[in-house]
Amino acid sequence: MKRVLVYVTPKKGILDPAGQATQRALQSLGYHEVEEVKIGKYIQLTIQDNNFSESSIKEMCSRLLANPVIEDYHYEVSDV
Amino acid sequence: MKRVLVYVTPKKGILDPAGQATQRALQSLGYHEVEEVKIGKYIQLTIQDNNFSESSIKEMCSRLLANPVIEDYHYEVSDV
Repeated sequence: MKRVLVYVTPKKGILDPAGQATQRALQSLGYHEVEEVKIGKYIQLTIQDNNFSESSIKEMCSRLLANPVIEDYHYEVSDV
Repeated sequence: MKRVLVYVTPKKGILDPAGQATQRALQSLGYHEVEEVKIGKYIQLTIQDNNFSESSIKEMCSRLLANPVIEDYHYEVSDV
């Protein structure tokens, strides 16, 4: 089996309301040292070895896992 | 500045409806090799050096960023 870790993050310059809300919440809890918060998705895929291909991973990311208009993604592949 | 990357994932055995829905969607797109999908949060914190402490990071995670009942977290610290 292959384990693919996909990291999806908001593109630079795109509004990140969840990140901003979390930053305000952390500061209201007294963590004033927090300068910025960005929130994205951390997706773990388990994939059969025999049908694994990097092109399929890229397709899955651009077709479903990340919105190419407002999100960037990168991924790491490892054996399970 | 410090950059802290926080990875929040559903605990083992906890239902992950978003992960299951994504798995079904990937399979309906023809990616039958996908055995399992788990979806968590990928949080990037930018923190001032002078007030940085690992104990504060742990507190932020357990008080706000992750729900200790249903989620696990781990984090990595680096200099920006």
